[in-house]
Amino acid sequence: MKLQVALDLLSTRDAKNLLNDIAPWVDIIEVGTPLVKIEGLSVLREIKASWPDKFLFADLKTMDAGALEAELAFDAGADAVSVLAVAADQTIAGAVNAAAKKGKSVVVDLIGVPPKQRLARIVELQKLGVETVELHAGLDEQAQEGYSLPALLATIEGTDVKFAVAGGITLDTVDIVAASGAETAVVGGGIYNAKDPAAAAKSLKEKILQLA
Amino acid sequence: MKLQVALDLLSTRDAKNLLNDIAPWVDIIEVGTPLVKIEGLSVLREIKASWPDKFLFADLKTMDAGALEAELAFDAGADAVSVLAVAADQTIAGAVNAAAKKGKSVVVDLIGVPPKQRLARIVELQKLGVETVELHAGLDEQAQEGYSLPALLATIEGTDVKFAVAGGITLDTVDIVAASGAETAVVGGGIYNAKDPAAAAKSLKEKILQLA
Repeated sequence: MKLQVALDLLSTRDAKNLLNDIAPWVDIIEVGTPLVKIEGLSVLREIKASWPDKFLFADLKTMDAGALEAELAFDAGADAVSVLAVAADQTIAGAVNAAAKKGKSVVVDLIGVPPKQRLARIVELQKLGVETVELHAGLDEQAQEGYSLPALLATIEGTDVKFAVAGGITLDTVDIVAASGAETAVVGGGIYNAKDPAAAAKSLKEKILQLA
Repeated sequence: MKLQVALDLLSTRDAKNLLNDIAPWVDIIEVGTPLVKIEGLSVLREIKASWPDKFLFADLKTMDAGALEAELAFDAGADAVSVLAVAADQTIAGAVNAAAKKGKSVVVDLIGVPPKQRLARIVELQKLGVETVELHAGLDEQAQEGYSLPALLATIEGTDVKFAVAGGITLDTVDIVAASGAETAVVGGGIYNAKDPAAAAKSLKEKILQLA
């Protein structure tokens, strides 16, 4: 399982400062949606220039203009972009086609798809050429009383699609994510809100390697 | 009915050049989602600084972190932001609360809500404090064969919510939008793809005034 850090920070400078500390321990650098909207595509260019060997994921959460948004992010250095599963099929197909042309990837974010509809939506997405989805409880959902990572994982149990998981994963819960068959664990606050982000990233990476 | 221009352009410079020609004829300036992702919040600051008397709408299409994204855009000069109707209720409530605190507005974009579920979702949105929605066929949906603006309008017939309409409106179709009871007509390509954008904006505004 790979470790992806979600940079839900408010400036390129904060993101680069954090990456200076944690980059050795992470496989995928995710530029979060708010950070893209704050800084624009320049944040992708700057991070790719400084960490050219890391896989760069732009969490665009595209809802329309699938081909256009994907192309712009790929041209700015992104290796993968996200599109919303609740978007129209043609939006998702547009991003998938743009990725195929450029040898890049698309991850379809399941956020907003009701739990009971997720497995059926995954089958539709696979017919559109989607290879990877993200099982994702948003920051607002995580803040709700009763939020549960195991319950989130249960909603796509049995799928044959490759998937990443995002939803408040920490050192204490990364094992159940690995056990779910996830290809990637996405960690945001579990790293950037830690007292020592480098130590948190290192511990997560080491635990993932032990679980493998 | 108000005229809103959707700046689905690729740079702040292109947006400002267009506005130099058309601003006198439009009531609301919309910075499109791709433009926000390309330029970041600076595009809002620059446009608000140059056209301080125009109502500035940031089409964030927020799917998560509702309060955060709204606050950032309001602080950058936006008078209103969009949140997706397919987002979690707490995301929408977060944006509504942020707007209330700052005396600004939220428009909930119905894109992605299946046609038959729109009226029911509007009732739920109103319970969350939402006052305005946008009935919206995305660029990818408009490009599909069989797309019809009248069919789009029919999906929320009878609602008592204030609404804007976006979906390929032109001088030839703005009358049916006005007749639908819309508070705002959103026009993008109908202005910026016209041979003479200023003439197109002027004609649209004059026709809307005649229809009133």
